Amino acid sequence: MRNAIFLYPGYRNKCRGLHTFFDDIYEGRMIMKEITRTPIVILNFKTYLESTGEKALKLATVSQEVADETGVNIAVAPQHVDLLRISKEVTIPVLAQHVDAVDAGGHTGSVLLESVKEAGAIGTLINHSEQRMKLADIQMVVKKTAESGMVSVICTNNIETSAAAATLGPNFVAIEPPELIGSGIPVSQAEPEIVEGTVDVIHKISLDVGVLCGAGISTGDDLQAALNLGSEGVLLASGIILADDPKEALLDLVSKI
Amino acid sequence: MRNAIFLYPGYRNKCRGLHTFFDDIYEGRMIMKEITRTPIVILNFKTYLESTGEKALKLATVSQEVADETGVNIAVAPQHVDLLRISKEVTIPVLAQHVDAVDAGGHTGSVLLESVKEAGAIGTLINHSEQRMKLADIQMVVKKTAESGMVSVICTNNIETSAAAATLGPNFVAIEPPELIGSGIPVSQAEPEIVEGTVDVIHKISLDVGVLCGAGISTGDDLQAALNLGSEGVLLASGIILADDPKEALLDLVSKI
Amino acid sequence: MRNAIFLYPGYRNKCRGLHTFFDDIYEGRMIMKEITRTPIVILNFKTYLESTGEKALKLATVSQEVADETGVNIAVAPQHVDLLRISKEVTIPVLAQHVDAVDAGGHTGSVLLESVKEAGAIGTLINHSEQRMKLADIQMVVKKTAESGMVSVICTNNIETSAAAATLGPNFVAIEPPELIGSGIPVSQAEPEIVEGTVDVIHKISLDVGVLCGAGISTGDDLQAALNLGSEGVLLASGIILADDPKEALLDLVSKI
Amino acid sequence: MRNAIFLYPGYRNKCRGLHTFFDDIYEGRMIMKEITRTPIVILNFKTYLESTGEKALKLATVSQEVADETGVNIAVAPQHVDLLRISKEVTIPVLAQHVDAVDAGGHTGSVLLESVKEAGAIGTLINHSEQRMKLADIQMVVKKTAESGMVSVICTNNIETSAAAATLGPNFVAIEPPELIGSGIPVSQAEPEIVEGTVDVIHKISLDVGVLCGAGISTGDDLQAALNLGSEGVLLASGIILADDPKEALLDLVSKI
Repeated sequence: MRNAIFLYPGYRNKCRGLHTFFDDIYEGRMIMKEITRTPIVILNFKTYLESTGEKALKLATVSQEVADETGVNIAVAPQHVDLLRISKEVTIPVLAQHVDAVDAGGHTGSVLLESVKEAGAIGTLINHSEQRMKLADIQMVVKKTAESGMVSVICTNNIETSAAAATLGPNFVAIEPPELIGSGIPVSQAEPEIVEGTVDVIHKISLDVGVLCGAGISTGDDLQAALNLGSEGVLLASGIILADDPKEALLDLVSKI
Repeated sequence: MRNAIFLYPGYRNKCRGLHTFFDDIYEGRMIMKEITRTPIVILNFKTYLESTGEKALKLATVSQEVADETGVNIAVAPQHVDLLRISKEVTIPVLAQHVDAVDAGGHTGSVLLESVKEAGAIGTLINHSEQRMKLADIQMVVKKTAESGMVSVICTNNIETSAAAATLGPNFVAIEPPELIGSGIPVSQAEPEIVEGTVDVIHKISLDVGVLCGAGISTGDDLQAALNLGSEGVLLASGIILADDPKEALLDLVSKI
Repeated sequence: MRNAIFLYPGYRNKCRGLHTFFDDIYEGRMIMKEITRTPIVILNFKTYLESTGEKALKLATVSQEVADETGVNIAVAPQHVDLLRISKEVTIPVLAQHVDAVDAGGHTGSVLLESVKEAGAIGTLINHSEQRMKLADIQMVVKKTAESGMVSVICTNNIETSAAAATLGPNFVAIEPPELIGSGIPVSQAEPEIVEGTVDVIHKISLDVGVLCGAGISTGDDLQAALNLGSEGVLLASGIILADDPKEALLDLVSKI
Repeated sequence: MRNAIFLYPGYRNKCRGLHTFFDDIYEGRMIMKEITRTPIVILNFKTYLESTGEKALKLATVSQEVADETGVNIAVAPQHVDLLRISKEVTIPVLAQHVDAVDAGGHTGSVLLESVKEAGAIGTLINHSEQRMKLADIQMVVKKTAESGMVSVICTNNIETSAAAATLGPNFVAIEPPELIGSGIPVSQAEPEIVEGTVDVIHKISLDVGVLCGAGISTGDDLQAALNLGSEGVLLASGIILADDPKEALLDLVSKI
C-alpha cells in the first residue's frame, strides 16, 4: 500500500521558465502510484557489512515495520546485488544507490537502469558524494529515469550545484555537505543556511523539484530541523545502519514528525 | 591592445533569479581589460602535432595576424605545456584547454588554475567533450576562475546540460553536439535547433552568460549561421588546425562577419 | 556437482620466482570445490537486454543445460543485480562482471566483493575492456578474491599487460585485443600470435596462472583454435547472447572439444 | 654536463625471462646522454604554490646549484606549464609529473608525451599516488617513453604492484606507501621491509629496472637508509619544497652520500 507513495500531485514537468524545453523530454514520466504528503526518509545502505545480503533484507524489513507503525514514508537504497531480494519482500519504496550512464549493450560491470528497474527499484540515487558523476552523465540518467517512470534523487554538495541539478528536472535534489557525511554532526543544525539556501534557489528554478538534505542526520531533532528549514525529507545512513538497534534509531528519527 | 577583449560591459553577476545567491561568490570577478562586441572565435589546439610546441607558437602567431588584419576577436587554447611561450609572444587572448578541480597542494600531475594563470592564460575551457568533468568539479573550477578574474567557457553536449551549466555563472557556455565534433558537419547548419534552444534556455537563466557553439565549424558560412542563431561566437579546432593553410582558413572563417 | 569445478590441483601459490613474496598474502586462498580439466567457457552477459533479469536467468539455465549435456565447464557472468537469482537456480559457476576496489564502509553505489560472494558468485572478472581499472585497484581486488577463496580472472589487452597481470597471482588472465571485442572476428584465428605470446610470457612468470582468450569468439572452430594455441578456455559474449538460438550457439561452440 | 646523467650502461632491455618478448618493443630506446652511478634524487614539485611559475624556476635553479656543488644526481619534476621555462634554464634532468595515455589527435586538455618532450622533459613520472592510472594506460605510456628515448619512472604502492610494474620494462619503479606520503615519516626507516621486498622482487624480474623509494623522505639519514636497503635513489617533495630553506634542506638530504 505504501509502495512508492512518493510524489506530490502534479509533481514535475512544471519547471517554469524551462517548461517548454523539457516538456517533450519528460512526457514519458508517469506519476508514481499513491501520493502522500508525509516527509520522506531515504535510508542509504551504502556498502556496510551491516547492510549487505541477509542483513540488508533484515534492515529493509525493520524499515518496513517502522513505516507501517508510524505512517512515515521510508524508502531504502540497498546495494545492487540486494535489490531484487529486498523489493520482493517489502512494500516500501526501494531505490538503487547508483546507475551508470549507459544504455543496454556492451558495458561489462556497469549498472544498467533497465536492470535495477526489472529488479523492483522504483528510482535511484544519482551523483552521491561517494559516487560523483560527470554533468553529462547525470543528465542522461535523470532523463532515463523520467522516461522509465522512475524517481530520481540527485545528490549535491552545495547551493550552486543544487541549482544546476534542479534544471535537469529530477524529482528530488538532496543537498549533503561532504564534510558532514558520516560525521554525526547534522547538516540541519550545523549548516542550516545551506539547506535554506538550497530550498530557495531550487524553488526559483522549479516548484516541482523537492529538496532533501543529508549528512550527519540521525535523531528526531535532526529530522525536525531539516523539515523546518523547508526540506521535504532526509537522506541518511550510518546513524541508523550502525546503530545498536536500528529499529529504535529509526523510531527515534521519525518521533518528532 | 586586443588582449582579452573578451567581456561585455556589466558582464555576469546578474543571473536574475539566482542573483542574491551568487553575488557574494563572484564579487572577486574583475571585468577583463578591454571590451568589444565583435563575435568571438576560440581556436582549440587540442593535442594535434600540428599545434604542439613550435608549431603551436606559429599557429598562435597566425591567429594574431588574422585578428589584427580583420579586427575579429580570436582567442587560442593551446596545450598546457605551450601556454607560457605563446602568451609571451601574442596579444590575443590565450585560454587553457582544461584545469583540474584542485587547489594548490599535493596533486602530482594535475593542472592548477594558479599555474595556467601565472603562465598568461586569461581563462580556460571547462568540461570539453574530450575532457568531461564531474558536476561538482565544474562548479569548483568556475568559481575559481571567477575569483581569479579569469574567463570560464563551459562546454556542453545538449540543451539540458547547457541550462545546468548556465546556473553556475560562467562567462560562456559552448554547446557542441559530440557526434558532430571533428565531423566537418557544422552544428550551425546541421542542428540549428540545438543552438537556438540553448540560446533561449540560457537567456532565461541569465542574460550574462554568453552562448558559443562548436562542432564541425570551419567556414565563413558556418560562422555566419552560428551568429544568426543567436550565438556570440564559435569554438573550433580541426577545421583550421589541419587545414593546408591555417591562415587562409581563418581568413575564410571570419570573412562573412 | 559442476559448481565451481574451476581450478587445477595445486593451482596457484607457486609463482616460481615470486613464490616467497606472495605466499603469505595468498595463504587464505582455498582450492575450489571440485576439480576438472575440461576447458573453461565463460559467458559474459554484459548489459544486453537479452541477458538482463528474467532473460538472464533463462540464459543461465540454457548454459547449465549445455554444461550438463556436454560435460564442458561453462561459467556465467551476469549483471550484479541478477547474481543472486541465478546462483540460486543453477549449479554451474557464477562470476561477477566486476567488483570495486573498496572494503566495506561508505562507498555508495560501489560493488562490494563481500556482497557478490554472499549472492553466490564464486569469482569475478577484473579489468574487463569495458571496465578498465587502475593497477593498484586490480591488485587489491585480486588479493581480496584470494583471501575470500574466490576465483579471479583479469582481462588484459596485450602481451605486456598480461605479464603484469600474471605477477599479481590471479587464477586466470584473459587476453582480449580490444579492437576484436564484439567484432565477430575471432582472436584465436585473427591474431594467434597474441594468444601464443601471452601463454608463453605468463608461463615464464607462473605455471599457476591459466590463460584464457576472448574477443570475437563464437564457433566451435574458434574455441578449438584457442585451445590449440595453449589457452585453457575462452571468454565470450555477443556471439552467444545475441544469437537467434543461444543454446544452439553454445552447443556449436563446444562441439569440437 | 649533468643533464640526463640518468641511466646505467646497458640499462634495460635485459629483462631476463621476458627478454624475447619485449626486445622488439623497446629497441627504439636510446641510452641517455651521460652515465653516472651516483644515487638519484627526484624532486617532485607537485602543485604547491611554492613550486609554481617563477618559484618553480627558482627551486629548479637551487636544485641545479646543489647538484653542481655536491655532484649528486638531482632531477626535478615541475608542473606541465613550467616544463619549458625550467628546461631552458637548467642542465639537470627535467621530468614531467605525468603524461596521458593518448596519441596526438583530439584529446583536449590531455598531456601529450610529444608535447612534454618538445618542452625539454627527458622523462616522466607515471602512476603517481596522486595520479593513479589504469594498467593498460601505464603500459602504453611506458612503451611511448621507450620509443621516444625518454626515461620512465612508475610509482607504485606496494611490493605486488611493483612487480607488475617491473614487467612493463620501465627505467625505474618508485615504491611509495601511500599512507606515508607527505607524512614526514620516512619509508626507509618506517617500513624498510617494503623497500627491501621491492628491490628483491624487481631484481628477480629484471636487473635492468632500478628501484627508487619515496614517502616521508627529507633528511640525509632518510636517504642513506634508502640506499642501504638497495634502492638507487629517492623521490621526494614536501620535505624540500615546503622547507624554510630548500637549498639547505637539499644539502642536508645529500650530505651522507
